[in-house]
Amino acid sequence: MSARFDEATTVVAGEGGSYQAVVVGDYNIGPVPNGGYVMSIALAAIQARLPGCDPLTMTAHFLRPAIVAPARVDVEVVKEGRRYATVRARLWQGGDLGAGEVLSVLATLTMAGAPAPAGEPLTLVDGSPPELGRLEELERVPRTDFYAIGGQLDFRLERQCAGWMRGERSGRADMRGAIRFADGRPLDLLSIPLLADATTPAVFGVIPFRRVPTLELTVHFRARPAPGSWLRFTSRTRFAFAGHLEEDGELWDDAGQLVAQSRELAVVP
Amino acid sequence: MSARFDEATTVVAGEGGSYQAVVVGDYNIGPVPNGGYVMSIALAAIQARLPGCDPLTMTAHFLRPAIVAPARVDVEVVKEGRRYATVRARLWQGGDLGAGEVLSVLATLTMAGAPAPAGEPLTLVDGSPPELGRLEELERVPRTDFYAIGGQLDFRLERQCAGWMRGERSGRADMRGAIRFADGRPLDLLSIPLLADATTPAVFGVIPFRRVPTLELTVHFRARPAPGSWLRFTSRTRFAFAGHLEEDGELWDDAGQLVAQSRELAVVP
Repeated sequence: MSARFDEATTVVAGEGGSYQAVVVGDYNIGPVPNGGYVMSIALAAIQARLPGCDPLTMTAHFLRPAIVAPARVDVEVVKEGRRYATVRARLWQGGDLGAGEVLSVLATLTMAGAPAPAGEPLTLVDGSPPELGRLEELERVPRTDFYAIGGQLDFRLERQCAGWMRGERSGRADMRGAIRFADGRPLDLLSIPLLADATTPAVFGVIPFRRVPTLELTVHFRARPAPGSWLRFTSRTRFAFAGHLEEDGELWDDAGQLVAQSRELAVVP
Repeated sequence: MSARFDEATTVVAGEGGSYQAVVVGDYNIGPVPNGGYVMSIALAAIQARLPGCDPLTMTAHFLRPAIVAPARVDVEVVKEGRRYATVRARLWQGGDLGAGEVLSVLATLTMAGAPAPAGEPLTLVDGSPPELGRLEELERVPRTDFYAIGGQLDFRLERQCAGWMRGERSGRADMRGAIRFADGRPLDLLSIPLLADATTPAVFGVIPFRRVPTLELTVHFRARPAPGSWLRFTSRTRFAFAGHLEEDGELWDDAGQLVAQSRELAVVP
């Protein structure tokens, strides 16, 4: 039996770089499917178009909220080089599936079997996974009618970050915790957009819970996560003014590797 | 007389959202026009297509090095809403201008006359401009035959960051300094991609000078710079491994306002 996330991101090739998919309700927060989940569907179509290529950087602009309904993803290969490929993708929903573009995507991938970079490799790691202590002592964000995505993810926050669930605020716009699939599905690159976007908005440390609409999210895929791993994450908002805020995230695996960096621009709620 | 940067980013509307431009050699580093300059040309075409709209977030994927030659920019409006507009743009050069796509762009802009966001404004500023002391005491990066862009920009680094010019390394992958146009052209949103990308790669604090090819650059436009201002900048690379590095930048104006945040993914040289 395949894992729920694999079913939920299944794409079926149509004609001319077009893929059919179905956005399911399992990753909803309120009535709206999580934007990272919808990005993962777009990534599934991109990977189907370029088998064996690994995503390296992916930017999505969110044009309208996704709906629980079929979707079409159009993938256009902009350039295929020796080392990198760049694609544009558009995810459509509603009416005849051309009614509304939900997601505009640009992504660059590493070509399958790309030659290793020449010269001396530079290694610089100025950062480390958050020290979370025992994961059993973190506070799980449970599934509720409103928070359907909590049934798919085992998503845990440090106690001092979890106050927003009780209407409390830590006074700091940051979140730290750990996340993985509730059904034990191994982590891979396809799951990174979902996991990068599914963590609680850092700004809930300073304002009460409400919708924080993302305008743009960029994910850098820095390493393939260790398969049986949790992802330990940090996210932080440093600047919120004039109506917009950024949120920076890091995802680390159990091997102590930086798996992804993310940055989004969102509307101040 | 118009400023050089205005001439160098002039676009002429053709048919169907297509704009003609000329990439000049004044912003070259070696034989290659600065990527941020080419992004500014794409932004000029986007602004011509959507007059009065201000860029908010812009991502460019760099497909091949630009050349000193004419260019065509195709701008497609993906969505125009009440508050935001999203566009795709492609910049072409070479042969009949369809020979090679140089830049693929996704951008979201604020609509001209957009209504102010509803509700209580949240303001959070966790950061400040770099303390640089007297700008006269910074070290200017001069124009050379190789570094033509140095003739267009007054670009100054803190002394401890400027060692790369003498083959020395600070041992830290960060840069701090100040930048503005050499001819005194006022700063505006159009100039931000150039200025965000024109600063020395932070990684030259730990490795010798060489080409650091950018794969993707995302700029968040956070405020309109004070017109007579310098921009004080910081840039930093925290993670370089497995062939790629990120660089995070901040640009601050004389009024102490965060003007832009940038993040790029580049190939480790």
